[in-house]
Amino acid sequence: MPVVDFFYDVVSPYSYLAATQVARIEAKAEVHWRPFWLAGVMQATGNQPPFLVPARAQYMQRDLQRLAAFYGVQLVMPATFPFETLTAMRCLLTLPAALLPASSLALFEAVWVEGRDVADRQVLKDLFGAEVLDQAAASAGKLALKENSDEAVMRGAFGAPSFFLGDELYFGCDRLFLLEHDLAAARGAS
Amino acid sequence: MPVVDFFYDVVSPYSYLAATQVARIEAKAEVHWRPFWLAGVMQATGNQPPFLVPARAQYMQRDLQRLAAFYGVQLVMPATFPFETLTAMRCLLTLPAALLPASSLALFEAVWVEGRDVADRQVLKDLFGAEVLDQAAASAGKLALKENSDEAVMRGAFGAPSFFLGDELYFGCDRLFLLEHDLAAARGAS
Repeated sequence: MPVVDFFYDVVSPYSYLAATQVARIEAKAEVHWRPFWLAGVMQATGNQPPFLVPARAQYMQRDLQRLAAFYGVQLVMPATFPFETLTAMRCLLTLPAALLPASSLALFEAVWVEGRDVADRQVLKDLFGAEVLDQAAASAGKLALKENSDEAVMRGAFGAPSFFLGDELYFGCDRLFLLEHDLAAARGAS
Repeated sequence: MPVVDFFYDVVSPYSYLAATQVARIEAKAEVHWRPFWLAGVMQATGNQPPFLVPARAQYMQRDLQRLAAFYGVQLVMPATFPFETLTAMRCLLTLPAALLPASSLALFEAVWVEGRDVADRQVLKDLFGAEVLDQAAASAGKLALKENSDEAVMRGAFGAPSFFLGDELYFGCDRLFLLEHDLAAARGAS
């Protein structure tokens, strides 16, 4: 099976939508879930979030609701947006790799379905337990998140979600159809 | 038939791709081709072109080639990009409305297939004839382009291509599937 790297941050609603659809990719590739820190990736690349432009912020709300309806999933904007995710993403990276997909989906749903504030340590403690929260503050969790973010930037990422198939970047939940198409073409050619 | 307004500028490669696919929308709606001036729209809304961020510029080239291959159309980057389109878009707006779709497609192909420089008056003269080029400099052509651009901004547009179905904006060739979906749903409901 080809390998697809899926870089995401829970602050990104388009990453949430992508995460709800990634099973379509998992049928055709081995997907590695790679938490990263979007704010750092944007800073490193000089990119800016679309919602800084008022007309884009307004459109983004409609676009997200239409995509969510199309995919058949819920999407509720949290009371605070954007929000800090450094500790939340470090928590994910203290877990065994096998738990990453389900735990990441649970974190996405805590924000984008239940409207919980994952910048709040108590919420993270409820979600992950005290031990994981303590480990996230240790240097290994910090380093793992920095390494994922640096690798994504080095490979050409500038936002989230970012999927890589080898050297090829697919940016946005709206490029999953091209990734699927290319995976099918690669299978047909082999 | 519902009415869809399609706002575009020949400088935008994603508008070119959308124009090659708009027949799918024309099967379900009356599409009004609405040339506008993208530079003015971006200035009015405070939006910035993605290619100002180096990592996005690099990705955009791959993304455009993949989308073009998926749609089965050619896309060649012109020697100069971006380029001035004020006169070219004014030429389109001096034509009878019935000629707009075919003339716009010809203008898109001049740039994105043949690599011609439509900032060059001689190229525009070859494409549209001397009479249209003269008329484009008159106040009616200038006013029509400004009116289309102002209307698009007033309705919420911030980039190109922008499609409107009533109050609903669909931004990008990658949202044509949602526009098609909503047109089909509206037909089913009526």
